[in-house]
Parts: sequence; C-alpha cells; structure tokens
Amino acid sequence: MDLQSVSYVIDTFFAIFAMTLIIFMVPGFAMLEAGLVRTKNVTAVLMVNTMIYAVASLAFLLVGYSIAFGDFGSDTMSKWAAFLFQMAFVGKVINIMSGGVSERAKVLPLALFTIIMGGFIYPTVVNWSWGSDMLAGTFLDISMYDLAGSTVIHSTGGWALLAAILIIGARRGRYPKEGGVRVIPASNIPLVTLGAFLLWIGWFGFNGGSVGSIASKESADAVALTIMNTNTAGLSGAIIVGAFMYFRYKKLDITMVLNGALGGLVAITAGPDLYDIYTPILIGAIGGTLVVFGVSFFDKLKLDDPVGALSVHLLNGIWGTLAVGIFASNGDTITFLGQLKGVAVVAVFAFVVSYVVLFLINKIAPLRAHNDEEMQGLDVEECGLEAYPEFKRAF
Amino acid sequence: MDLQSVSYVIDTFFAIFAMTLIIFMVPGFAMLEAGLVRTKNVTAVLMVNTMIYAVASLAFLLVGYSIAFGDFGSDTMSKWAAFLFQMAFVGKVINIMSGGVSERAKVLPLALFTIIMGGFIYPTVVNWSWGSDMLAGTFLDISMYDLAGSTVIHSTGGWALLAAILIIGARRGRYPKEGGVRVIPASNIPLVTLGAFLLWIGWFGFNGGSVGSIASKESADAVALTIMNTNTAGLSGAIIVGAFMYFRYKKLDITMVLNGALGGLVAITAGPDLYDIYTPILIGAIGGTLVVFGVSFFDKLKLDDPVGALSVHLLNGIWGTLAVGIFASNGDTITFLGQLKGVAVVAVFAFVVSYVVLFLINKIAPLRAHNDEEMQGLDVEECGLEAYPEFKRAF
Amino acid sequence: MDLQSVSYVIDTFFAIFAMTLIIFMVPGFAMLEAGLVRTKNVTAVLMVNTMIYAVASLAFLLVGYSIAFGDFGSDTMSKWAAFLFQMAFVGKVINIMSGGVSERAKVLPLALFTIIMGGFIYPTVVNWSWGSDMLAGTFLDISMYDLAGSTVIHSTGGWALLAAILIIGARRGRYPKEGGVRVIPASNIPLVTLGAFLLWIGWFGFNGGSVGSIASKESADAVALTIMNTNTAGLSGAIIVGAFMYFRYKKLDITMVLNGALGGLVAITAGPDLYDIYTPILIGAIGGTLVVFGVSFFDKLKLDDPVGALSVHLLNGIWGTLAVGIFASNGDTITFLGQLKGVAVVAVFAFVVSYVVLFLINKIAPLRAHNDEEMQGLDVEECGLEAYPEFKRAF
Repeated sequence: MDLQSVSYVIDTFFAIFAMTLIIFMVPGFAMLEAGLVRTKNVTAVLMVNTMIYAVASLAFLLVGYSIAFGDFGSDTMSKWAAFLFQMAFVGKVINIMSGGVSERAKVLPLALFTIIMGGFIYPTVVNWSWGSDMLAGTFLDISMYDLAGSTVIHSTGGWALLAAILIIGARRGRYPKEGGVRVIPASNIPLVTLGAFLLWIGWFGFNGGSVGSIASKESADAVALTIMNTNTAGLSGAIIVGAFMYFRYKKLDITMVLNGALGGLVAITAGPDLYDIYTPILIGAIGGTLVVFGVSFFDKLKLDDPVGALSVHLLNGIWGTLAVGIFASNGDTITFLGQLKGVAVVAVFAFVVSYVVLFLINKIAPLRAHNDEEMQGLDVEECGLEAYPEFKRAF
Repeated sequence: MDLQSVSYVIDTFFAIFAMTLIIFMVPGFAMLEAGLVRTKNVTAVLMVNTMIYAVASLAFLLVGYSIAFGDFGSDTMSKWAAFLFQMAFVGKVINIMSGGVSERAKVLPLALFTIIMGGFIYPTVVNWSWGSDMLAGTFLDISMYDLAGSTVIHSTGGWALLAAILIIGARRGRYPKEGGVRVIPASNIPLVTLGAFLLWIGWFGFNGGSVGSIASKESADAVALTIMNTNTAGLSGAIIVGAFMYFRYKKLDITMVLNGALGGLVAITAGPDLYDIYTPILIGAIGGTLVVFGVSFFDKLKLDDPVGALSVHLLNGIWGTLAVGIFASNGDTITFLGQLKGVAVVAVFAFVVSYVVLFLINKIAPLRAHNDEEMQGLDVEECGLEAYPEFKRAF
Repeated sequence: MDLQSVSYVIDTFFAIFAMTLIIFMVPGFAMLEAGLVRTKNVTAVLMVNTMIYAVASLAFLLVGYSIAFGDFGSDTMSKWAAFLFQMAFVGKVINIMSGGVSERAKVLPLALFTIIMGGFIYPTVVNWSWGSDMLAGTFLDISMYDLAGSTVIHSTGGWALLAAILIIGARRGRYPKEGGVRVIPASNIPLVTLGAFLLWIGWFGFNGGSVGSIASKESADAVALTIMNTNTAGLSGAIIVGAFMYFRYKKLDITMVLNGALGGLVAITAGPDLYDIYTPILIGAIGGTLVVFGVSFFDKLKLDDPVGALSVHLLNGIWGTLAVGIFASNGDTITFLGQLKGVAVVAVFAFVVSYVVLFLINKIAPLRAHNDEEMQGLDVEECGLEAYPEFKRAF
C-alpha cells in the first residue's frame, strides 16, 4: 500500500462512517415524528418515513445523482462511497416536508412527490451548490458557502413544506372558528427524545462528512472542528429554549427544548468549519430562539405544522446560511450578499417548483385525506393497522 | 509507523467499526420482535433476545470460535478484532430462530439450544464455508460463494426455526378449527420500525465487514460497492412489497413493507460484492416478493411464525445464495450447481441437527409453555413482570 | 501525506468514532431511565437527561476542560477530537446521579448541580487521574490505574448519587411504615432494553477510545482487546444474574439481568486492556453478583434508587478499580494499595463536595418535589406535558 492509497482508503472508510451516521437519521425522523403525532396517525407517519427512504434513495440512484454530479466518479475515494454519502442526504429533504403535513397528508401522493423531489428538484439544487453547476456564468450563479446544507437541504425541504401546507391546509380543528390554537399533544415523548438524539448523532456524519476528506492533518482538524461546532450549536439551542420555557412558563416543554437543539443544529450546518469554538454558541442560541418565536408565528398565520419543521428547518436554514455571511465573510468568496442571493434563488426555485408539482399531484391523487379518514386517523385507512392496537385510548 | 502497520491498523479499526454496527442488530432484533408480538409476551421476547446475545457470544468465545477457525489468530489485523467481528454474527442465527417461535417458546430451553447452536452447530457450518473446512476433499466439500451468510447465517437460522416450529407447533388459536388464519396484530409499530432500521444499518457492517479488508484501493471499492448494493436490495424489497400491498389491498401494511426490505437484505447478502449496481434492484425485488408469498404459503402449511422469519431469512437465504450462481457465475469457482450444493448440504445438516437437538431438549425441558401460561402471556410466568404494567389493555 | 500525518489522521478519526458511540449513551441513559420509572415521571426524566447533556457539555467546554487538562492541545490527534472525546464523558457522571433520584428530584436544582459537577467537580477528579495532576507530589497523589473511569466516572457519579439520596430521601410510599419495600414496577420494558443496549454499544467507544490511540499494531491490539474484554464482562454479568434469578426465583427479571450486564461493564472499565481474555468473565460475574446483592442491600438501608445506579455504578466502580490491583498488579505502578488509595481519595472528595454543593443548592432551590407534585407525577408540574397522554392508565 502506497501513501496515495492510504488517503483513498481512509477517505472511503470515513465517507462510509459518515453515511452510516446519517442513515441513523431515518429512524431518527421516524421516531421523532411518530412521537409527535397522535396515536391514530402513527403508523401512517412511519410508513411515510419508510417510503421516503426507499423511494428517494432509489430515485437518486437511478436519476438524481447524475443530475447533481454528472457521472459516478471520484478520484479521492471510492466512487461508491461518494455516492452513498450523497444518497444518505436525499431523503432528509423530503422528511422535513412530510413531517410538517403529517396527520392529514396521504401516503401515495407523497410517494409521487418523493420521486420528483429525490430524482429532480433536490438534485438540481445540489448541482448549483455542490455539483457541476449548470448556473455558472449566468446571473443566477450562486456562490454561497453552504458546507452541509442549511440552504441546500433544510431550506429546500422547508420551502417544499410551506408549499405543501398552503395546498393541504391545517388539521381539522387545529384553528377553531372562535379563534386561538387548539393544542394537540404529542403522544409519545420517549420516541420524540430518541428520535431527536438519533438526528443529533446523524448530524455529526452529515456535517463532518461534508468536509469531504479526513486524510490530512488539515482535513482531520477541519472535520473535528466541524463536529465540535455542530454539537455546540445543538447544546446552545437546547439551553436557550429551556431557559426561555423556564422563565416564561415555569414548564420545561421537552418537545420545544429538543426542537431548539435541532434548530441550532440546522443553523450551524452552513459553516461549522468556518467558526471559532465560541461563535456556535451564539448561532445556536439564535437558532433556538427562532424556533420559539417561529412556532407561534406560523400558528398565527394558521400554517399548521405538527412537528415544528418550518421553524426548525426553514427559518434556521435561512438563518444559518446568512450567519456564514455575518460571522465568516471574507469579503471575497464569502459575503453576506452572496449568501443572501443563494438563499433567495433556492427559495424561489424550491418553493415555486414544489408548489407546481404538488398542485399537479393534488389533481391526480389528492394530497389530503378525507374528513372522516382524518377523524378516524390515517392508520387504518392508509395502512390497515393501528400503531398500538392493544393499548386502550384515554380519549 | 510503516505501511504494513497502516494496513493492519486500518483493518483492525474497520473490523471494530463493522462489529459495532452488527451489535446494533441486538436491539434491532429485540425491538422488531417486541413490536410484532402481543403485549403480554413482550418481556419474554426481550429476555430471549438478551439471553441469546449473552449466551451465544460466550459460547462462541469459549468453544465455537476454535471450531470455526482453529486458533485465535490473524496476520492482517488484530486477532481480537477478527474475533469480535465473527462473534457479532453468532447471536443472529439464533435470533432468526427465536423470533419465529415467540409467544409460546420458553426461555430456558431456548438458552440450552443457544449454547449448542452458538458453540457447535453454527461454528461447524462456518468451518465448512469460511473456516479451515473440515469437509475439504470429501464429496460434501462445499465451495459455494456466500460473502456474508445468506446461507451460513440466514438459512441456517431458518432451518433451525423450521425444526423448532415443527416440534413446538402453532400459537393457540392461530389456525381455528373452522379454517383460515386468525390475525394477531403487532402491538407496537414504532418498535417494529425502529428495529427494522437498526437491522438495516447493522447490515452495512455485516456485509461490508465481510469483505475482510478495506486497506487497499481495490478493497475499499469492494467494501463501498458491497454496502451500496446491500442498501439497494433493501430499498427494492421495500418498494416492491409496498407496491404489491397498495395495488392489491390499497393498504400499505408497514410490517410487510419492512419485512420486504429485510428480505431484500437477506437475498443480497451472499454476493453484494459481485454485482453491478443495478442487479441488486432485481435481487431485492424478488426477495420482497418471496416475503409476500412466503407468509401466505407458510400459513397454509400451518407453520406459525409470528415475525415472518421463515420468509425473510430461510426463503431469501436460499434465493440469495442461488442468485449468486445465476448473476455472478464464472463457470469455475462460482456455479449455480455449486451454490445449490452448498444450500443443500447446509440445509440437511442445519435442519437435521437442529431437529435432533431440539427434540432432545424438549424431553428435558419442554420448549412449549403450558396452555394457561400461553393464554396469560409468557411475561408474568417467565419473567415475573409485565412489559407495560401501567397501560390499560384494550382487549 | 507522510506517515506521521497518517497516524494523526487515523487517531483523529478513531477518537471521533469513539465519541460518537459514547453519544449513543445519551439516548441510552434516557431510554433506560424512562423505561424504569412510572409513566407519570417519564417526561421529567427525559428532560433531565436532555438538560444534562446540554448543560454539562457546555460547562465542560467553557470551564471544565481547562481544569482537567489545561489548554486545548494535542500533538497526536486533532485537539478538537481530543476535546470531543473527553466531552462525551462528562454528562455520564451526572446521568448516574440523576437516574437514582428520579421520580422526586426537580429539574432546575439538578441543572445547577450539573453546572458545578460538569464544570468543576468531575474535571478536578479527571485532573488528578488523567490530567496534569495538581495532586502530584502531595501525600494525596493518586497513582491508580483507571483506564476508562471505573472510579473517575462511575464511582464519582455514584458518590454524588449517595449524597443526593441522603439529602432528598426516598420516594413516598417506597418504604411503608409497616416495613418492607413496596415494589414500584418499571413502566416500559422495551425502552429499558433499548437503553441498556445503547449503553453497552457506547461502552465500546468509552473503553476502546480510552486507549488513546489505535495508530500502531500495539495500540490496535490494545483497542481490540479492550473492546473484547469489555464485552465479555457484560456478557458474564448478564448471565450470572440470569442464572441467579432463575435458580432463586424461577423468574428471569430482565431489569436485573440488564443491570447485571451494566454492572459487569462498569467493573471491567478500569482495566480492560490489562487482562487476558478469560479474566473478564470472572470480573463481570462478580460485577453482576454485586448488582443482585447491592439492590437488596441499599433497600435495607432505605436508600431509594429507582434504577439501581448505586449497585451498578458505585459498587462496581469500586470493585472494578480494586480488581485491577488484584488481577493486574505489577507490584510497581499498579498495586492493590495504590488502587485502594485512588478509590478512597476520590470517594472522600466526590462524596463530601457533592454533599456540600447539593446541600447548598437545596437551600436555594429545593431538590425535592412537593408531595402533591410527587403524587401527581413530575411531568405535568415540571414539563407541562405527559409522556403518554393518549394511553389510558391501568392504575
């Protein structure tokens, strides 16, 4: 084995390691969302999560990867490892969207959207940002810095979710005629907690792996700093929301605290390799704060999002990308305006295309479950089985 | 550090990484099975899974490893890492078997069988297939290609399960006198989903680690291709079963879809390093299809298997091994007949020896719980505690 | 890439891998404890676990790390990776303590204690044992061998727990006036099992990573042996408790069996790299036995510990550290008396300082929930939401 092979081997191994951590986000999202929805919709949520991983990954293998990156190919590591790492990302974009429309969106139309998102929409955004860049040289050329996808993954998924909520509408009874918001409590807090921590761990692979190599002292430092900063932003997001909840309500709502951690993690994702070790505390704290206010804000707009994905992923995806322009601008390749332009171009594209595609799908296969199906819960109609058939319901 | 040491270090690290992923299959099987059985049998199922890991691994350390491989020893990596990787496999064979007899098999006789399977039966099969091969030169010499154990692990466990079901019989009331099959619903779908994805992730270690080395460009490519193809077969198995369920019943039964994924994963296990990147789609699709039809088929034969292990592991273990002979035959070291012979020799040995051993154990310590214990659930009698004591039962 | 860089890269990667496994212990402890307590206290327990990870890790970043090790810095791997690995340990010390006072201790005072433990108490113990050692040359100089923290982590946490139980007292109704112990059953056995296995897997990173390097043949062997011996002690602890439960009660209480495994894992933690491959069987068996008798013993003393942490962590932390002096004494750097002295110095310091700090916190923010809050369960008062709101309670 020569030294060049050593680098190839180590980077292949590291990409496989990172990919594996990201795949833990599949049960991560599944458990988080299954815990946040009512018991009558749990099986449907799990089915959607399973379907997304299977369909999006296969669509990416068959079509999306070549749109994003051209040929299978990599000089610095096994091309199959490079593919696996990128494939692990795809489903996440759709997970972000599906979570926010759970408890009323049907599985089949979501599967159709998954094919188009995983095979075409997301790969196009990747092409502009991380791939061969078909926009290069045009006035839409986006040169933003987005290491692991605050915009590419989280905003893209968030914009698709916004489009979906506009088309599908809120859950029945969520916003009563007499005003206000009806609280619909999460059904299983241990699952929420488990899911959030699996996501957190997955983020180490997501962001750490996005450095692209670990096979030199500089790269190894960059990977380790990236993971350290990623974690710090999550810690900070959780703490700020906990403090807010305690001082405002004297109640530590764990679902908000965990979403605060996830908000911090989304916010750091654009540039965890660019900051010193203290800046992520601030970025994560603002991320957590955005979650607290975002949840109320979207409820005021009657945009019903049972898992808080608009606040966690859309707001923090934007914030995290802009934060790079604020805290890591070098006045040349990284500027605030450059970051803003990237956010804006992806916003328009992801929202408009998702809206049109969902609108068309809705004509063929209605996205929304019938009223009585929604009342009864989606599990029985969509999946033919209940999540917890032996447990007597309290209401 | 010289270059030869680098290779030794990387392969040791990689074996530890792969082993760790496989150990996630311990909670993987435990959660999958705990979710599939009724609440009254959940603790017993978890106890069996815990016992299997503890007892099988220790039996393999004390006896089995030397039957399989001779001395502790490896030149290319730490001998302890080589042991750990092999040890991680052992319990899986018995997990396959124990899942299929859950809800009526007692813990103690299963523990006795675990000692014999982990210490003797499985190590013998490993010796023939991957070890020093005491059959070499005899007419029973099996030269099949089975990278990570479609036959060695999955069929072996499946044959043992078939023997066990024949001796133990079906759950009470499963096949009513008036004919048909009484549906016994899974009690906890989030656990089923979590378990299936932990198994899926474990499979990356199982198959990727079975390449045996990552410490050269060629090996790194082989490992990455192996993991990619493994994953693809899982995707394909899930999708085909989902499509079948949707078009046939308009209900996406998630337990079937997840078993479809597992069927695809079993089927690819014999040769994930041998195929191009598209063949696994076909192999996994056939794997998923075998699960759909296998489940009905075994119910027609009144072979009661609460978790579908005969379809997932036995049928797909056979299919996957034969698939190597179909899609990767080189007419010399790999042929369809060679694969078939391997399947057949292991089938006869694993089934006959398991049957005899279980028959004898059954004389000493009856495998099957008493009727009233089965009615009440095994948890209280076997373990002295309920899985969910505070949750009121719906029935 | 030169060979010295290869070593740096591999050790950085390995530290990240080990750290990741340890972070799985966060959901590990959370699920274990959420499963062991009553449903009315589950959210509070999960909130405490989440808070501990966030607060302890940030306190260690801001203050603790420099107390323990001086500056950020490492020559042999990325200093950020070295930090991450050490940071992953901190929360564990407090997890050990918080689990044992669950069902009656409030979140806010535990958060205050977490800051002090994570920022000061634990870092001081680390400084003496693994760091720059401010005790060196004094008569308190502790030269014990404690690879991964039988004393540094587990006893320290255990002594803090003992202090906390003495201040907080037992759960209402646990020790009735008429004598005896009221059994309070675990509410969710699948979560207990999942949590225990996540901890088990995390231990591979804990102990394996504590070897400090994998980047030479000798180190790679030491890491692999460490993980192998760690696992073996867990196997042995589980089996001995299972055997005891079966022969004594004919009931395989899975919570005891899993705690037996954890006891074995704690016991091996001081010296898994020092033993041959059979000694851990004995060390783990004694560890499991200590759990069985410890649980009764502490109940006799009316030290109420809902998760068995005193037996698992305190008794086995002591036992494991002394075991090094028994089985691996070299009469020079490792002696029984040296080990005993280390145990004693840490015991006095950890217990006294924890007691004083908790006593003072108790004056400012009472540690114990009010009676009616305890009766109702801590979830509603502390967190404002129930863990399983839709599930009807059986009692």
